[in-house]
Amino acid sequence: MLNLQSESSRRWLTMMDENLEEILIDHAHCEKKAAGCAMNLIFAYIDREELCREMAEIVREELEHFEMVLDLLRKRGIKFRRQIPSNYGRQLNDLVRKSEPERAIDRLLVASLIEARSCERFDLLRNHLKDPELAAFYDSLFESEARHHTTYVRMAKYYGSEETIRLRLEELSALETEIINRGDTLPRMHS
Amino acid sequence: MLNLQSESSRRWLTMMDENLEEILIDHAHCEKKAAGCAMNLIFAYIDREELCREMAEIVREELEHFEMVLDLLRKRGIKFRRQIPSNYGRQLNDLVRKSEPERAIDRLLVASLIEARSCERFDLLRNHLKDPELAAFYDSLFESEARHHTTYVRMAKYYGSEETIRLRLEELSALETEIINRGDTLPRMHS
Repeated sequence: MLNLQSESSRRWLTMMDENLEEILIDHAHCEKKAAGCAMNLIFAYIDREELCREMAEIVREELEHFEMVLDLLRKRGIKFRRQIPSNYGRQLNDLVRKSEPERAIDRLLVASLIEARSCERFDLLRNHLKDPELAAFYDSLFESEARHHTTYVRMAKYYGSEETIRLRLEELSALETEIINRGDTLPRMHS
Repeated sequence: MLNLQSESSRRWLTMMDENLEEILIDHAHCEKKAAGCAMNLIFAYIDREELCREMAEIVREELEHFEMVLDLLRKRGIKFRRQIPSNYGRQLNDLVRKSEPERAIDRLLVASLIEARSCERFDLLRNHLKDPELAAFYDSLFESEARHHTTYVRMAKYYGSEETIRLRLEELSALETEIINRGDTLPRMHS
């Protein structure tokens, strides 16, 4: 369903356990970036009303999640702060082709894959985390990430045939798997 | 309350009457831009948690308004489309100083003035428009613009003393009045 070609490694869960605070802060940044990405798509593809409406909905949800993570941090006495991001998003964005409509397709599919990977990791977390509040938190976010994944893929179909989108998603997903398997030295949500 | 130094001219109401469709489309773009502006402030001032939370709230509300205007256009059979924007926003943004914390102050105060001007114009519209649906629509938006104005001014006070903010708001407001009085040849919400 998620169009991913790999499962997160044990290495990442260990990293999570050892750097929970750092990863929770990164999670807040991720929600903010997800909102920013959907907002940029509204500005870029304003002619496509249905896309704008779907993106507006996603922005609103991601910002709600952003505030939920901020609440969680505050409750735990963790100060929200700037952080160096993981290289995951940048590497994926580098795959976006420059000319339209390929650019629209790639931006939407890259966004769909980021949602998919978050979804896969939230699923791991809700089962893995000993802390019941955190486990419940990731359980509550799981469903919307899956839904956003599907929305982005559906929106990409405005810009190419069903087959074009399927093939490109497969290609990008293979590259996403390479990127996530290479990992990152920083403990982050997408390391 | 709104810190504006002028009232909209009769000229603008006449322009509105003669170019309703054009101005309604511009209104949708304005809501989108207002959401984008608040989102950019989250990214720029992520260290200031209270500001981020307030901006997140504003983004959500502006996007709701964006969709409300899209609904209104759809109901009236008006196709939402790209438009050349009025020069109002660009001229105001040109007033923003480059270095911090002056930049933060100016970005917030410019946003506050745009909200104030929208509020003033929505007030005119709710009283002027013969179309009861449109009059009710602008009446429903009036309150949130006033509230956003106040929020932006309050957020600016994180970056300067009460007196600094008061003086700069007065300065910027005088310039806003010059800009709005010069007007624009295009029929727009802020012409």
